[in-house]
Amino acid sequence: MLKKRHLLGIRELEAEEISLILHQAISLKEIMERDIKKVPTLRGKAVVNLFYEPSTRTRNSFELAAKYLSADTINFSTSASSVQKGETLKDTAKTLEMMAIDAIVIRHPSSGAAEFLARHVNVPVINAGDGTHEHPTQALLDMLTVLEKKRTLSGLKVAIVGDILHSRVARSNIFGFTKMGSKVYVAGPGTLIPAEVERLGAVLAKNVEDAIKDADVVMPLRIQLERQKKAMFPTPGEYFKFYGIDEEKLKLAKEDALLLHPGPVNRGIELSSAAMDGPQSLINEQVKNGVAVRMAVLYMLIGGERN
Amino acid sequence: MLKKRHLLGIRELEAEEISLILHQAISLKEIMERDIKKVPTLRGKAVVNLFYEPSTRTRNSFELAAKYLSADTINFSTSASSVQKGETLKDTAKTLEMMAIDAIVIRHPSSGAAEFLARHVNVPVINAGDGTHEHPTQALLDMLTVLEKKRTLSGLKVAIVGDILHSRVARSNIFGFTKMGSKVYVAGPGTLIPAEVERLGAVLAKNVEDAIKDADVVMPLRIQLERQKKAMFPTPGEYFKFYGIDEEKLKLAKEDALLLHPGPVNRGIELSSAAMDGPQSLINEQVKNGVAVRMAVLYMLIGGERN
Amino acid sequence: MLKKRHLLGIRELEAEEISLILHQAISLKEIMERDIKKVPTLRGKAVVNLFYEPSTRTRNSFELAAKYLSADTINFSTSASSVQKGETLKDTAKTLEMMAIDAIVIRHPSSGAAEFLARHVNVPVINAGDGTHEHPTQALLDMLTVLEKKRTLSGLKVAIVGDILHSRVARSNIFGFTKMGSKVYVAGPGTLIPAEVERLGAVLAKNVEDAIKDADVVMPLRIQLERQKKAMFPTPGEYFKFYGIDEEKLKLAKEDALLLHPGPVNRGIELSSAAMDGPQSLINEQVKNGVAVRMAVLYMLIGGERN
Repeated sequence: MLKKRHLLGIRELEAEEISLILHQAISLKEIMERDIKKVPTLRGKAVVNLFYEPSTRTRNSFELAAKYLSADTINFSTSASSVQKGETLKDTAKTLEMMAIDAIVIRHPSSGAAEFLARHVNVPVINAGDGTHEHPTQALLDMLTVLEKKRTLSGLKVAIVGDILHSRVARSNIFGFTKMGSKVYVAGPGTLIPAEVERLGAVLAKNVEDAIKDADVVMPLRIQLERQKKAMFPTPGEYFKFYGIDEEKLKLAKEDALLLHPGPVNRGIELSSAAMDGPQSLINEQVKNGVAVRMAVLYMLIGGERN
Repeated sequence: MLKKRHLLGIRELEAEEISLILHQAISLKEIMERDIKKVPTLRGKAVVNLFYEPSTRTRNSFELAAKYLSADTINFSTSASSVQKGETLKDTAKTLEMMAIDAIVIRHPSSGAAEFLARHVNVPVINAGDGTHEHPTQALLDMLTVLEKKRTLSGLKVAIVGDILHSRVARSNIFGFTKMGSKVYVAGPGTLIPAEVERLGAVLAKNVEDAIKDADVVMPLRIQLERQKKAMFPTPGEYFKFYGIDEEKLKLAKEDALLLHPGPVNRGIELSSAAMDGPQSLINEQVKNGVAVRMAVLYMLIGGERN
Repeated sequence: MLKKRHLLGIRELEAEEISLILHQAISLKEIMERDIKKVPTLRGKAVVNLFYEPSTRTRNSFELAAKYLSADTINFSTSASSVQKGETLKDTAKTLEMMAIDAIVIRHPSSGAAEFLARHVNVPVINAGDGTHEHPTQALLDMLTVLEKKRTLSGLKVAIVGDILHSRVARSNIFGFTKMGSKVYVAGPGTLIPAEVERLGAVLAKNVEDAIKDADVVMPLRIQLERQKKAMFPTPGEYFKFYGIDEEKLKLAKEDALLLHPGPVNRGIELSSAAMDGPQSLINEQVKNGVAVRMAVLYMLIGGERN
């Protein structure tokens, strides 16, 4: 079982724990594929999705993962909530805990929000993305997708391309793949690469081509168009020309390289439609694995607690 | 069982298929009325309500229909979703499919959105209203309501009054009642009657009185007040005077004529309060039948698939 | 069992009925604490949360209460609804009733909305707060919290401090504690005390200190900051100075006095952080009791009906 009570980030996990979660996810996926989708493991448990940022796939993925384990779910999103009334995150969480909730899944624009929450409640907290800090279940599903295809997470070259500075997905994946014995190369516009990137464990490539060359895994990041407007790139077209992944750039990687993207994709900006819909793309498999990984995490953090 | 995998419109259905759905709905309604509301038929199945337009009754009706069949439901509405992030409908749907969803119920402002979706996913798609194209479950519940009272759908005169041009409800009902052997007469402001209405199978009445005269079923359509503002009628009061159904106009129909309305009603605009709350009104029965018809459709499209 | 079909206000209840609900809640709480959280009592029943005002805790509390009893829940909030389409409350409720809903929980900005609804539907209506009228489940959870600590609700002095004029919580608690044999003292800014307060059964204290002196229960009300802006108090700081409850003021009450607050708290405005997080505060217990009381109410109003 996991040594931690919460899932706040990949940085805190040991390789062995990551491996445990991934193998739990594989077992659950096998059960799902035998069409016994609903398992009674978490019957009588309640999971709250506490989302302070809009999200489709992550929230739906957690909600379905909980439901497939027979847990009840409560969605709590900012628009319909008393955040408007000025309640603090701590008081909101304490309130939820007192309502006999068994786990809190939180997405929040502030880095560190999940950890803050974990210090104030007595139920497992699962970080579904906090500011520019971490998005651990995304990295777990990325690792699961690679593990299934490559049979290992060790000795691989992983290229992450784009706005590394603001990306919690990049950070969690750098920690994860590095811990599992792979090497992560990053590339992107100079102003969007944090100075500390090498201290995180990544290698700063000279340019995109260099990062991708002979890579086993290529992962363009989603461009936040709202954010980009204020930044250095005048047009999405220019971004695509320099940093967008297309079939041409993909040829620099190994022949059997895998293409991952955290989604949703801006087609034609960070990734061409042809590459996205091509044979190397595992984007749909990532979504499927997202549900499996979240089922594993919920099962291990909640189910393990009381049984 | 149905020959189709999806329910995209009434136009594509054969009379026999319509009949099958209606009789399935009647069986389910009988079970519900014996107070065994929750049946385990779709346990372990998950239905997503993908609503790109606001809706109360249709969304709640589908959600309850799914829950009464023991399916899990996920609500995905535009406000809290990554539509804001610019994801395409196709990518959104593909994502949902990968999350082990068993059916997608879609409402969308664009005509053809449901069919587009059906071409891109491998799960049944149910059209809950697409632009000005079709709203098949509305027509099915209307037909069920009439069938229960008249014991037949053949040889009836059905009058539909209002904005035929923009009404997916009108289109689906014209197809449905015509296929089942009835005659549909339409009337409304000249600019709101499509030129093609007779090609759809309806008869264009000279005026409202003519449409209603000796009708077995009278169906005023909901006026979209937002839309109407830009149109030819200066005031709702004027609309009511010429096209609104009141007890006076209703007397032109057969003595035992049925009054239907897709809801929600603008009281005093397309329908008078007295007529709406009068003995011929089946508006509440329509709502009840909406749940039954949607249960039947979900059951036949999802349940039939794997059993 | 309850004599009423609905829970519209505490004013309509007899002391014996209040007592029945509280003891039912205690039983359900004991079951919950034995970790058999999900009981099958309301399986196959459907509860709709019809919320015309934003709310976190009350809506979540009702939703969880229903789910822990195995009922299905439907959330209907104004933002995603056809209220935009101009449907009347009556028509909305009638529609929900026809969908085989078993109870309606309503929150509405207009006083009397719950009673209005109860006159128009054939299912139990539970008032979750209507305008400045009543919020009966809040008073029930407050009474339950006091009962558990004091072993009685008779012979106590209860102090309610703040904007009594606009507070449905104050009204419901005045009715409840008075019916159970306690004495309720109110204090607050003069313009925020209704003239009729003594007719409601409360005692108007000379000032806050007088209200709190030797009290068994101290209950500061939440300040509606939006509303307060237009009112007499220039700053929240001034409000806190005169009417805010801090450890100093709390010392005027009995040594074992209980501190309650309906939540969410504006820390440092109507209540100091030190007092809120201090040993006399039962705010978290109130939240827990909120779920138990709502389970009891749902169980007694829905479960009793058909069994």
